Amino acid sequence: MSTSAIPHSESGASLKHRRTAVLGSAYRLFYEEPVELIRGSGVHLYDTDQNAYLDAYNNVPVVGHSHPAITAAVQQQLSTINTHTRYLHPGIVNYAEDLLSLLPAPLDQVIFTCSGSEAVDLAVRTARLVTGRRGIVVTANAYHGTTTTAAELSPNLQPGKEPPAHVAVIPGPDAYRESGDIGQRMAADLRQAVHRLNIAGAGFAGFLADSLFSSDGLQPGPQPFLAPVREAVAQLGGLYLADEVQSGFGRTGSHWWGFERHGLGESPTSTPDLVILGKPMGNGLPIAAVVARPELFDEFSSQMRYFNTFGGTPVTIAAAQAVLNVLREEKLLPHAANVGASFHAGLAELAQQSSAIGQVRSAGLFLAVELVQHPLTQEPDPTLAHRIVNELRRRHILISASGPYQNVLKIRPPLVFTTAHAQLFLDIFSDVLSVTAR
Amino acid sequence: MSTSAIPHSESGASLKHRRTAVLGSAYRLFYEEPVELIRGSGVHLYDTDQNAYLDAYNNVPVVGHSHPAITAAVQQQLSTINTHTRYLHPGIVNYAEDLLSLLPAPLDQVIFTCSGSEAVDLAVRTARLVTGRRGIVVTANAYHGTTTTAAELSPNLQPGKEPPAHVAVIPGPDAYRESGDIGQRMAADLRQAVHRLNIAGAGFAGFLADSLFSSDGLQPGPQPFLAPVREAVAQLGGLYLADEVQSGFGRTGSHWWGFERHGLGESPTSTPDLVILGKPMGNGLPIAAVVARPELFDEFSSQMRYFNTFGGTPVTIAAAQAVLNVLREEKLLPHAANVGASFHAGLAELAQQSSAIGQVRSAGLFLAVELVQHPLTQEPDPTLAHRIVNELRRRHILISASGPYQNVLKIRPPLVFTTAHAQLFLDIFSDVLSVTAR
Repeated sequence: MSTSAIPHSESGASLKHRRTAVLGSAYRLFYEEPVELIRGSGVHLYDTDQNAYLDAYNNVPVVGHSHPAITAAVQQQLSTINTHTRYLHPGIVNYAEDLLSLLPAPLDQVIFTCSGSEAVDLAVRTARLVTGRRGIVVTANAYHGTTTTAAELSPNLQPGKEPPAHVAVIPGPDAYRESGDIGQRMAADLRQAVHRLNIAGAGFAGFLADSLFSSDGLQPGPQPFLAPVREAVAQLGGLYLADEVQSGFGRTGSHWWGFERHGLGESPTSTPDLVILGKPMGNGLPIAAVVARPELFDEFSSQMRYFNTFGGTPVTIAAAQAVLNVLREEKLLPHAANVGASFHAGLAELAQQSSAIGQVRSAGLFLAVELVQHPLTQEPDPTLAHRIVNELRRRHILISASGPYQNVLKIRPPLVFTTAHAQLFLDIFSDVLSVTAR
Repeated sequence: MSTSAIPHSESGASLKHRRTAVLGSAYRLFYEEPVELIRGSGVHLYDTDQNAYLDAYNNVPVVGHSHPAITAAVQQQLSTINTHTRYLHPGIVNYAEDLLSLLPAPLDQVIFTCSGSEAVDLAVRTARLVTGRRGIVVTANAYHGTTTTAAELSPNLQPGKEPPAHVAVIPGPDAYRESGDIGQRMAADLRQAVHRLNIAGAGFAGFLADSLFSSDGLQPGPQPFLAPVREAVAQLGGLYLADEVQSGFGRTGSHWWGFERHGLGESPTSTPDLVILGKPMGNGLPIAAVVARPELFDEFSSQMRYFNTFGGTPVTIAAAQAVLNVLREEKLLPHAANVGASFHAGLAELAQQSSAIGQVRSAGLFLAVELVQHPLTQEPDPTLAHRIVNELRRRHILISASGPYQNVLKIRPPLVFTTAHAQLFLDIFSDVLSVTAR
């Protein structure tokens, strides 16, 4: 079939029909009326009718859609050479040094992969080989990826289903519903989970957590709570695996990495053993990584060969280097902190006026609005979340809903989002809230 | 650390030293004297001194290094939009239709991933979910990738180590050493392997094989032998998973896919159930895929959600579409068949003159030279293979060695390799052989 036979002015319905035929039911689309996006720039995406959408959802294009510095770096490298890591190339070494300089010691070595899923899989494999044990503890609504191993560690994919014997689940943090010290509670739950893993014969290889607990509904605090958990992990003889796919590369504004918000990394013993990087790393080019203490990788590679054909190629490394450069040159971390704080304040003000908003949570430019039937009952309102997400889409603002109850609005724009964009969001959101909420 | 502080004229030894510090021992380099490559074009790679190397090894840049059509497609798409599959985009649908038109029915649906490893992992997950069984059969020196699941199915990674109970191993084809009907022998071995899986309680989910048995030393024939194996798989109630990462996209010249060389796909019942695509698919951009009968993906997605952030993004799809276009426009399949045949004839002529060459095998532009102590003993000579690989590198020709005994020269250039390149290879190889072989 010649692709030139495809008409350009085809309707979205026809494209959707053709799509379903060849991609099948595993592929889901966002929104009741899916959107066909054909151009992107900064925080804006454009559909086939040239309507502009405010992108308040996508974290992968961290420095903005179609950033010219990323395109230039990729174009330059792709027209020069693109091989793999079994030949020497300065790009990967320069980038590795640059990246590692942003992480606390003793996180001094990196292995590159193509996706966060591959990185999670490799980090877990490393933890299992090094400890000689299989058991991993995750939170109750965690999502860590799509490989067999990463999916097993993602209760979010199969709600209500019992995990395999080598996976133990503890309740995620819930700053809205739980009182008391979250960290102490999680550490106690961890001890019980490890006890169950030991009884099951799996033993305890490690604790794996997204430092922002995104799929648990975004739980950034308000106070740091991971220090007691990290201490318990060490006492129990396991490794601490920090999944920074969501929280890394400045998303939180205040820090490069989400675990730092909890004081982890301030001393060698509090530093995570393995750190998983992904999504925003290449602004959309497939690159991800595991960072670790060198002795962990030494032990892994003494037992097992590892070569990833597309992991850390000159082209994806060029994209990743350009992302780091832009994040620094455009000072996007302090920017995210400032815009995020002002955005949070605006949402908190709306929460004062609406009984549908139970809580507003945020860290930098990752914000969550928890929708409830009523603040007193705290009963989740996923129906309202669904209506708001779709009504915002009709008004050309893109977000999504997540959390254990699918009632948490997920607001996570490219970091070049400004206070003016936040104000536009707040104005329209306020109106949508008044239309959709009871 | 600022990357501009890195000197450009740094020595390879210094770069290697810095590399070992940050990338660690898991990263291996090719050759006794690793080569630093900074530019590529067609079948040539260039080092820091502008020496040209003839690339007779790399299959990923299938249409040649730095092909301008790939760079242009990526540059154009990256500067326009690069999102993910939860928005409608025509590129992925056009490409999926184009790709599927090259595969026999009922292989009518595709899911995109970033790497062959992710695709193997997804195909195996699908086979296990659909059959409700865990056991997979692979060949004795198979390599299928780097995720936990793909690595378990790669005996090549851990020679001599007993596989887990849900993995059964059968001897790979060996057209040099085994007499009799290879297909019937493999089918009989498969039956025994499935018996072992049943006894172990794993049951039989599927048979997974590289259609060219590359890591088993490249076993393309000489006669087709997979039909009886495919029949046995069906009779035993499992699924046939064709790993086309090495053999796909025209590598064999005669066919788009390696399984077709064995007559599989001539009828719906002989068609593989799941087909895994990878390496050359995007000429170096990270894209891979699983192609399957729609009912298999339906069953998978009724049990499990699947979303791959970087799988099938507009940019990697643009690269993949450009690869298909170039393969057709430059008529690279018949080209590979012709050049491969003439290259094979030249190697066979050298084999007549050298007792060190036990057998020459090939399919299109994938060629193997099996080196032995003596043709009568057939005893493998990995030391000679190592010496030849390194001597060719010193003479600026890049190949590698593989196979169960590491004694098989692996010759697998970009498909734009010409008979003149083959002749140059033969001239230098002949000389190297006379110098290195006893």
